[in-house]
Amino acid sequence: MQKKGDRYLEVDPWRIVEKGFHKEQSKVSESLFCLSNENIGFRGSFEETYSGESLQGAYFNSLYEEKVEDRSGYRGISNRLCFMVNCPHALKLRLSIDGQELDLAKVAVEDFQRELDFQTGLLTRTFVWKLGDGRATRFTFRRTVDMVMREQVHQQVQVTPLNWSGAVALEFLVVDEPLHVNQKRTYWQTAASGGEGHARWLVSRTTQTNMPLFTGHAVFFEAGTAAQSTPSAKAWDLSYTVTVEEGKTASLHRTWLGDSSRNPQEDNAAVEARGVKLLRGLQGGFAAAAKRTSDYWAEVWKSVDIVIEGDPVNQQGIRFSMFQLLQTYSGAVPGTNIGAKGLTGEAYNGNAFWDTETYCLPFYLFTNPQAARGLIEYRHATLPQAIERAKALDCIGACFPIATIDGTESCTLWQHASLQFQPTTAVVFAIQHYTRVTGDQTLLEEKGLEVLIQASRFLASRVQYSENLKAYGYYGVMGPDEFQMMVNHNAYTNYMGKRSLEYALEALAALRKTRPAQTEALGKRLNLTEAELSRWQDVADKMFIPYSKETELFEQHVGYFDLPHVDINAIPETDFPLYHSWSYDRIYRNDMIKQPDVLMFMLLYNGSFSLEQKRKNYEFYEPRTIHESSLSPSVHSIFALELGRYQEAYNFFKFATRIDLDNYNRNTNEGLHTTALAAAWMNIVYGYGGLRSDGEQLLLNPVLPKEWQSLEFGVRVRSSVVRVKLTPQGTNIKTVSGPALKLNVWGKDYEIGSSGVELPAKVAS
Amino acid sequence: MQKKGDRYLEVDPWRIVEKGFHKEQSKVSESLFCLSNENIGFRGSFEETYSGESLQGAYFNSLYEEKVEDRSGYRGISNRLCFMVNCPHALKLRLSIDGQELDLAKVAVEDFQRELDFQTGLLTRTFVWKLGDGRATRFTFRRTVDMVMREQVHQQVQVTPLNWSGAVALEFLVVDEPLHVNQKRTYWQTAASGGEGHARWLVSRTTQTNMPLFTGHAVFFEAGTAAQSTPSAKAWDLSYTVTVEEGKTASLHRTWLGDSSRNPQEDNAAVEARGVKLLRGLQGGFAAAAKRTSDYWAEVWKSVDIVIEGDPVNQQGIRFSMFQLLQTYSGAVPGTNIGAKGLTGEAYNGNAFWDTETYCLPFYLFTNPQAARGLIEYRHATLPQAIERAKALDCIGACFPIATIDGTESCTLWQHASLQFQPTTAVVFAIQHYTRVTGDQTLLEEKGLEVLIQASRFLASRVQYSENLKAYGYYGVMGPDEFQMMVNHNAYTNYMGKRSLEYALEALAALRKTRPAQTEALGKRLNLTEAELSRWQDVADKMFIPYSKETELFEQHVGYFDLPHVDINAIPETDFPLYHSWSYDRIYRNDMIKQPDVLMFMLLYNGSFSLEQKRKNYEFYEPRTIHESSLSPSVHSIFALELGRYQEAYNFFKFATRIDLDNYNRNTNEGLHTTALAAAWMNIVYGYGGLRSDGEQLLLNPVLPKEWQSLEFGVRVRSSVVRVKLTPQGTNIKTVSGPALKLNVWGKDYEIGSSGVELPAKVAS
Repeated sequence: MQKKGDRYLEVDPWRIVEKGFHKEQSKVSESLFCLSNENIGFRGSFEETYSGESLQGAYFNSLYEEKVEDRSGYRGISNRLCFMVNCPHALKLRLSIDGQELDLAKVAVEDFQRELDFQTGLLTRTFVWKLGDGRATRFTFRRTVDMVMREQVHQQVQVTPLNWSGAVALEFLVVDEPLHVNQKRTYWQTAASGGEGHARWLVSRTTQTNMPLFTGHAVFFEAGTAAQSTPSAKAWDLSYTVTVEEGKTASLHRTWLGDSSRNPQEDNAAVEARGVKLLRGLQGGFAAAAKRTSDYWAEVWKSVDIVIEGDPVNQQGIRFSMFQLLQTYSGAVPGTNIGAKGLTGEAYNGNAFWDTETYCLPFYLFTNPQAARGLIEYRHATLPQAIERAKALDCIGACFPIATIDGTESCTLWQHASLQFQPTTAVVFAIQHYTRVTGDQTLLEEKGLEVLIQASRFLASRVQYSENLKAYGYYGVMGPDEFQMMVNHNAYTNYMGKRSLEYALEALAALRKTRPAQTEALGKRLNLTEAELSRWQDVADKMFIPYSKETELFEQHVGYFDLPHVDINAIPETDFPLYHSWSYDRIYRNDMIKQPDVLMFMLLYNGSFSLEQKRKNYEFYEPRTIHESSLSPSVHSIFALELGRYQEAYNFFKFATRIDLDNYNRNTNEGLHTTALAAAWMNIVYGYGGLRSDGEQLLLNPVLPKEWQSLEFGVRVRSSVVRVKLTPQGTNIKTVSGPALKLNVWGKDYEIGSSGVELPAKVAS
Repeated sequence: MQKKGDRYLEVDPWRIVEKGFHKEQSKVSESLFCLSNENIGFRGSFEETYSGESLQGAYFNSLYEEKVEDRSGYRGISNRLCFMVNCPHALKLRLSIDGQELDLAKVAVEDFQRELDFQTGLLTRTFVWKLGDGRATRFTFRRTVDMVMREQVHQQVQVTPLNWSGAVALEFLVVDEPLHVNQKRTYWQTAASGGEGHARWLVSRTTQTNMPLFTGHAVFFEAGTAAQSTPSAKAWDLSYTVTVEEGKTASLHRTWLGDSSRNPQEDNAAVEARGVKLLRGLQGGFAAAAKRTSDYWAEVWKSVDIVIEGDPVNQQGIRFSMFQLLQTYSGAVPGTNIGAKGLTGEAYNGNAFWDTETYCLPFYLFTNPQAARGLIEYRHATLPQAIERAKALDCIGACFPIATIDGTESCTLWQHASLQFQPTTAVVFAIQHYTRVTGDQTLLEEKGLEVLIQASRFLASRVQYSENLKAYGYYGVMGPDEFQMMVNHNAYTNYMGKRSLEYALEALAALRKTRPAQTEALGKRLNLTEAELSRWQDVADKMFIPYSKETELFEQHVGYFDLPHVDINAIPETDFPLYHSWSYDRIYRNDMIKQPDVLMFMLLYNGSFSLEQKRKNYEFYEPRTIHESSLSPSVHSIFALELGRYQEAYNFFKFATRIDLDNYNRNTNEGLHTTALAAAWMNIVYGYGGLRSDGEQLLLNPVLPKEWQSLEFGVRVRSSVVRVKLTPQGTNIKTVSGPALKLNVWGKDYEIGSSGVELPAKVAS
């Protein structure tokens, strides 16, 4: 795998730091310095006027617009795109001294530094602006997106004249009609506005979906700061002349209050009333507001932190990954999911994919089970949409969408929307995974079983029987590897379909024993019959899995081995990404694959395959994989570690933790690869930690990369938090909270308690 | 095959006749009564105001608009739709008596009859309108689209008051901004206008493609008719008060003059000057104008007519088919092709498909070789576009588009545009077919060889080699059967690719002998190397053709035999057309096929397969074919005749000749299935005539359906016209013009001259 990085930020264990303004990286920085709190996301754009390259974006999780195409000639072809829409916000400023406007695209500044601190969630930017007449002024901007009061974002503006006294004009603006860049238009109309004192607000609505948004802001003057109101061009802006004195710092604090019920039915008066109430409750003081968020992060890091000694670059990478992931989702805002780019950009339209269950869920399962449960509950809550989707595909049961915000299918490339079923099997796997790891049966009992039944119905209705093969299988599908578009008997889909049906039957049988009345009632409500269950068993039993006993290779799909071969190492680097430089259909007709497919089900059901099978399939498929999916390297790193291919594993890992920090995919400007950041966590815990959670017992196979002095990570298992520390001297495993528990390490069972167990060192070599 | 017809027109050997106005069929009638002359097409809409259901359309061959979508994320994905645009015209009328307007949707009329005469090309409509006060008036409208002066359309309006005298208001209108119904907008803007005497005109331009159109009209008063000009609402309309007298017929004649260079660069003044000159040259007299066209048709029918005795229904059907086909294309207007719906509606956007070479070309080859040559020259003229298209697909050479007006790819369903290559092999086949049948080497020499070389380049660059199979083949293709979307080693594509390369090499070798200097020069210009030719030979030699020696079955594509089986007879009739009632992807994942695929190459290269092979493949594939393509039944009928399955053949044939007259596909309202009408001709000549033209010698295997008293058809072979007449008493074959020639009939060679040969009868039983 050849990918070139591009690093311009300072390496630091707890922060990302930009020294000197890197104008040419402005959009990349906006992505990297993005702040969010699961509810609101705001790219790291400058608050003041900036006329250079910029992708400004304020996003509210699950607040979306839609675009519907007429495809009435065809049934089941998805035609409605939902996209997280760029929203009005109140972080914009205009700053000027004697009519000269501050715009970093036009004026030169000195001593520029921007930093984002993962320990506090605080974004700070400071620089000195020198006017032509020699007057120099330091500006410092601080910003924090509130992790406790999740409709609040706080902004601090500090102005320090270094060699003069006088006045600075400072306007606190509201962006009322933001441009959605991908769609080249705004989707917002102002429905009401108002103001009082140093506060203003407006109520806006999206054009098509009619979603309401309250945007309010209030300005506070910090101790010793004097300012005078001046007229504003727009009713919702707040303008001031700030008196500044040489060597002294004038400091102002604004809170942006963004509140939305996402409910199109809610009327403007109700939206306004609730917003104004929240706005009136605000109290000034940036430091106090920032402390809430700082405290929140301190608490979070206690259990999730991963400490790498001897490798500051990856230390920074892994903390950045967790910080961004936790900003995007932590289970606090009901009904939300994890978009492929989180709340950091318009790309992928804010839609959630099967990445949620497959890559993100393990992180939450082992750090915040309640948040993990929320992700599965999201799927249960969207069952009606998944049932509708299955119908549109001439099937029954529930087909979960390949891309979604509101539970409906939002992928408008029909070949993906109609042919990919890994979201459905991923949901089943997630229920099984959650139940096994947490020991919490209530999710399965209350919601999971219904999902399993509906998913099984879909899987059993979409499957087809071949008389010639005397077997079932899925025809006309695309597996996880999107470079084989429309194939028959994709090994992943068939295998996962089989295992999903088996688990559903097993869970149902168990609940019939433990909760007979409720289980029977559910079966009745869903018209479940014994004939249907027999059919599921029959399909599972006779599912065709393309496999050669001789070579121990799974065939990615029937016919894959006969495909023309492409030497992926001979593809010029300039051809990547292939979608831009290869004719669309050319990508799909050779043995090159984009991302793991056979290896993916071998990872999910790791314990079901021998080491030799894993080795042979890894050695066959990895050289055919171009890793054009940002999720691919981590999976391969985890495999390589299990197979003892340490150098290869380390190379993949380096890519995973710093995919955005080093902009390996050349598109960090569009937003972060949020779900790939989750895969980076898996790369540590499943890779170097060797965690396996697909069997009855949790397994650990820790190994320390020879490049590191130590590695320490934590996992929450039921009510205990276990921390594992690897050094060249030994391997220490202990609980830091909760009762002692059993863990299997390197094939042996241990009772792990707070005093820990001291095991030998294992260093990759 | 179960298809239900819906017949409301009278059966007549030379006409279609509607007795009484069938309001519910108004759009179907507009299609069936369409008149065109290869240049202009006009649906059979009423000239006067009609507020009922109507799809009005005036079309100019190859005058098109475009619609471009942004698909910049993907290379090679077609994104530009060209569509034959609904054009301004001057056939519209407004007719009223004392302020009461004639509108057949609102007023009742008596004695309505509409008829289209294939012998004269004349459309006549007549009825009596009775006013509330008892006044009755006969109206008669005649219309003819000029087959000689192809920018002219003539209209006659006759008014006969039956029981009163007075005045009729008659306005000759121009439709200046016609609505394009599919796109729900007009694409026309008026750029200039003018008038003099009883003539008016305007110059219009299309919005996107800037194509010019001159629309002029001139009104003439036929002998004994008095009319007074009155003011018009629009400058380009002509309004009159016509004095009418009881029992006498007032008669007016208007000529619509539609002229377009289709050249976006031509300026308005030039367009206007040429149009006005043509307009000034017009002479009145509807009868004289109509005679030109009537004479033209008389001459045409002499050689092409097919006479069926004892079956008036199919007699009408086959003449209607030929009449409509010849209206659409006869080689008189350079640069035109044959749209799937001719010039009869907006459906299929006026685009030409591989139907041209595969279904229409034989008709012209054997009736009007010059017109056949024109179709091939169209492909040569569009080589630059086909070369561009191959490049967009990361190939070299020329890839002919699946749908086109101007030579560029106009199919915006990428899966068809990127994966179907039968247009390219069809062009190669057409060159070979033309050259063999006509004996005319000049097309091959002057243009054909260049096309063959570029097509071969494409075929040899799109093919891929499988190490496992040790063979070449096409991966990721859709064959002619559009129900198997993206398959490997489609037998049709592989077979046709192989034969195309072989023919190109053979033709090149021959021309190197007969025209060494010119052939070398061409090779130099195209940088043709011996290595390239060796590669073509290698590809042809090692092409994989999926075939089982044991069963003698060709497999439609690798894996087809393993597909789940669908019993097509169990599909409810209401499910058709499947695209509307089945989920899109569901259609593509079973062994059901839409149209012949294996059978198609077995028909084209008929002489290369044994009767037993044909029988086995027909018996295997026909029961899996739902014939959702209108072209499918004729091919199966031809096969069934060769196999002696006469009843089956007759059932298919009945469908073919009357597909539109009986509206079998329930969409004649959108326009005629023009290319299927060509297949109906093949069904007679290749089917009942048993003509085979794929070998060195022409073969005939005529057989008379037992339902008929006689069948007579003609074919032009080189400079002779041969007519074949089958009766239960005998089979007579003779030339009616040109020298004697050799023909093989039922396996024996005969010398056929003007005195003919008398052979035994052969009647299907």
